[in-house]
Amino acid sequence: MTGTDRWAIGVDLGATKIDVAQVEEGGLLRYRLRRPTPINEGPAAVEAEIVVAVRDLLKIAGSSPVGMGVGVAGQIDPNHGVVCFAPNLGWRNVPIQADLSQALELPVVVTNDVRAATWGEWFYGAGKGCNDLICLFLGTGIGGGVVSGGQILSGYKNTAGELGHITTDLNGPPCHCGNRGCLEALAGGWAIARMAQEDISNNPSAGAYLLKMAGGQKEAVSAKIVIQSAQAGDPLSIHIVNEMVRALIAGAVSLVNAFNPCRLILGGGVIEGMPELVKQIDQGVHQQALAAATSSLQVLPAQLHADAGVVGAATLAMYSFANKGGQY
Amino acid sequence: MTGTDRWAIGVDLGATKIDVAQVEEGGLLRYRLRRPTPINEGPAAVEAEIVVAVRDLLKIAGSSPVGMGVGVAGQIDPNHGVVCFAPNLGWRNVPIQADLSQALELPVVVTNDVRAATWGEWFYGAGKGCNDLICLFLGTGIGGGVVSGGQILSGYKNTAGELGHITTDLNGPPCHCGNRGCLEALAGGWAIARMAQEDISNNPSAGAYLLKMAGGQKEAVSAKIVIQSAQAGDPLSIHIVNEMVRALIAGAVSLVNAFNPCRLILGGGVIEGMPELVKQIDQGVHQQALAAATSSLQVLPAQLHADAGVVGAATLAMYSFANKGGQY
Repeated sequence: MTGTDRWAIGVDLGATKIDVAQVEEGGLLRYRLRRPTPINEGPAAVEAEIVVAVRDLLKIAGSSPVGMGVGVAGQIDPNHGVVCFAPNLGWRNVPIQADLSQALELPVVVTNDVRAATWGEWFYGAGKGCNDLICLFLGTGIGGGVVSGGQILSGYKNTAGELGHITTDLNGPPCHCGNRGCLEALAGGWAIARMAQEDISNNPSAGAYLLKMAGGQKEAVSAKIVIQSAQAGDPLSIHIVNEMVRALIAGAVSLVNAFNPCRLILGGGVIEGMPELVKQIDQGVHQQALAAATSSLQVLPAQLHADAGVVGAATLAMYSFANKGGQY
Repeated sequence: MTGTDRWAIGVDLGATKIDVAQVEEGGLLRYRLRRPTPINEGPAAVEAEIVVAVRDLLKIAGSSPVGMGVGVAGQIDPNHGVVCFAPNLGWRNVPIQADLSQALELPVVVTNDVRAATWGEWFYGAGKGCNDLICLFLGTGIGGGVVSGGQILSGYKNTAGELGHITTDLNGPPCHCGNRGCLEALAGGWAIARMAQEDISNNPSAGAYLLKMAGGQKEAVSAKIVIQSAQAGDPLSIHIVNEMVRALIAGAVSLVNAFNPCRLILGGGVIEGMPELVKQIDQGVHQQALAAATSSLQVLPAQLHADAGVVGAATLAMYSFANKGGQY
């Protein structure tokens, strides 16, 4: 097999769907299969679903991959490829690496889903060719990955990069993590929805537009609806979004001052729904962070969008196994 | 020369004093000379003073060092050993590495003073044997250094580790850096003094004890006086110190969640004056940071105290030049 037709399998395992992809060396995503996650049937059923999807992919591909990378939304023991804790899946201590590599007779490497997306953006997205970058993914929650001096930071217990849980307002609202004032509690999708719902309760006339947009159901007001309402000119939504932007700038300033990256890469559903955020954060960070830390900083949108997870997981597999010639 | 009697020169260059030390491989500080910094006479005079001090040291040592490391409170270009900007010294673009190595005919390496202290704590202090640590130095300002995966983080332009400038309260008071709510603006020595002075103005009866302790001069109220007054039971000082502790815990939580270190090492004048802070921050971080990030975390006092800078600068020199056999 020549270098150019080497490929790896990337898996992005989430609570609602499993993405399985064929990714070539060079980052090209050739095929992607998607299946719903049988989350209520437990880890064995989910793993069996992954195995079926990978076998389908192998039939289409017609050649053998270098290995397989799996990104999971949870805390991973990287040495043994065990999902220690994945709250959205309801998993504790699932040895997914051993299970999948035994079933598929392939080398498997497991990482956190956000770390996988960071691998993807670093190698084949907005971070290409850069040794010092931060990826910040803004969705329902906020997560990130940091590359410093050409290494992805993993930390002592592999949990480095919990960038949604930097304290941005020590007097701020409670976070899901148990602390208060985390960046995620000010600017994560769930927090935007919570703020909007509270504002509707506290000031029904100001909240009337938002409530209408959610079909009259306060609980249906989401970050997406708030962003769309702000873009349509609703004053309350504009206020909520402005506060979110202010928090995101403050959080980005912290990260830029602490890590001094060359690029700050912004992705996730909130950025997809509000691409002008990238420029706003760029301007705010350049105004508020230390001059020395921003002199060469670029703030850029992520490029791989929904593919970052599978491409990154496959990239990690390529990185981990390619020099072993695909041998197990 | 055998491995055991190799040594390096460590220099800690500050705005008030120059420390020059003989540090053996293994971290033993054998001699230290101190001279005042002739700060008003400009860079050439300061460099000449360092040269004189080093020549004195070389006479005492009676053997040749592997090289010399210099820690400077400022922004350093590590490739050329240039002090790009050192506000406390009033320096811009001073090629101190070239100047000193020419004058002394020694290999010279230059780094930021806080980064130097991190080298010291990592190799020979509270960080010994640990590959993932954060040093946080709490003094008039707040600075830090981060070791992750066995590498000191330097960032793209060598300014990583500005841990005093993570935004901890986005609605907080102005910082010297131009931003607001930085950790340093809430918990740095200058900020403690400022808060105390403001509180004395706003509430003279509550501030009476502090004012008395400062000899009746409001401007003379320092962080040291506030900490001592809190330890003596003054309610206003206790309030100010409690707010400082709360900010330090919030900042430490951010760092622990972002970097997932094995050890958080606390040093600097504020810790020396209030050693109980280490335990308070330890407890707060374990309560407030993510469980996964703190499961193996130790919060420890720095061990090298005022020697961290010279020992660390010499350690960097040893690390940079030892394998070149001391050859220039």
